[in-house]
Amino acid sequence: MSAPTERGRFITLEGIEGAGKSTQVEHLAGLLRARGRRVITTREPGGAPLAERIRALLLDPEHGAMCETTELLLMFAARAEHLDKTIGPALEAGVWVICDRFTDATYAYQGGGRGLDIAPIATLEQLVQGALRPDQTLVFDLPPAQGLARARARTGASDRFERETLRFFTAVRDVYLTRAAAMPERYRVIDAAAPLEAVNAEIARLAVELDQTLGAAR
Amino acid sequence: MSAPTERGRFITLEGIEGAGKSTQVEHLAGLLRARGRRVITTREPGGAPLAERIRALLLDPEHGAMCETTELLLMFAARAEHLDKTIGPALEAGVWVICDRFTDATYAYQGGGRGLDIAPIATLEQLVQGALRPDQTLVFDLPPAQGLARARARTGASDRFERETLRFFTAVRDVYLTRAAAMPERYRVIDAAAPLEAVNAEIARLAVELDQTLGAAR
Repeated sequence: MSAPTERGRFITLEGIEGAGKSTQVEHLAGLLRARGRRVITTREPGGAPLAERIRALLLDPEHGAMCETTELLLMFAARAEHLDKTIGPALEAGVWVICDRFTDATYAYQGGGRGLDIAPIATLEQLVQGALRPDQTLVFDLPPAQGLARARARTGASDRFERETLRFFTAVRDVYLTRAAAMPERYRVIDAAAPLEAVNAEIARLAVELDQTLGAAR
Repeated sequence: MSAPTERGRFITLEGIEGAGKSTQVEHLAGLLRARGRRVITTREPGGAPLAERIRALLLDPEHGAMCETTELLLMFAARAEHLDKTIGPALEAGVWVICDRFTDATYAYQGGGRGLDIAPIATLEQLVQGALRPDQTLVFDLPPAQGLARARARTGASDRFERETLRFFTAVRDVYLTRAAAMPERYRVIDAAAPLEAVNAEIARLAVELDQTLGAAR
């Protein structure tokens, strides 16, 4: 009889627009694969067919006046589907999952940016995730003005979130840093304002460390 | 100075497929208008532009394997938008709202039909509606086999809910009847298996009664 498959590990990358998360998701995945791990990368909102259709509703600038509670519920509806169809099955099969944004983003954007109460976010987190939390969360931190300048240089059109103000993104950043400070064992803050080479080197160092610490048999 | 506008009244019609609700929504609206009330009719899921886009995701047979929590959250996401854009503003303006299905349907379909826990439904009801509940709910009751036969005769294709089994709709009906029995002041059970003329006459009688009782100044 073979040993049961050990559950995969769940790593999330967080940060405001222009922090370079999406690039580093693929970078980190490549480094972990090179160390022999099976890895998938995914993103929120989205990551499953129906969740991507919900993402399209969330980002469509046509819905500028979307009720804040609607936005919150759509985020968690997409997350429930993402967990059910993509993240859950991968972890069960022993595959590591690297996800571009997860529930920390809901606390940061809907809680911090939009100023929604934290209590319903925590209630929905419990309803949708049960006990599941990321094993490690990397927060890509940089001043919002710098992030927005990068995001605007990159994309022609802006989506519903990119149209928010500097004040909004400052509140988002504050929530990320507060959560990271409160739970230092789960979070790493990466200086995303540093030159790309320095960020790359930091991720390369982290890949070795996470492979060893998170990867240790439980 | 004129008196402040009195808030409108909120009437919901519930029942399984083929119970004749949609016809009676318009019938009741016409009768109340004839008595001088300003009335709008609407439906769930839907009733606002974004809510109708969420409805399309919910009913699309392509999403047969939708996670049950996703379905529940999409229902309430659509409801939050419906309340924010359509129902709330109408009631504020003194207009009566007659709605084809509301949260009782979530208790009946997701709770009864799908067997989801009641607790998260109640939590989401509170989050999305606060203290708002319908002033009156009319439950159109008939044996599920009869309702399904009517629904199938009416429509060529069936949506994701119409494809459910007789066992499913029996559980849905049971929840409606249980809720009506528990809160008799808010519910009326209409015998929807009766001939159309009898149902029409019952609604005509109810329109007079609701105009007087619900319509009495508060």
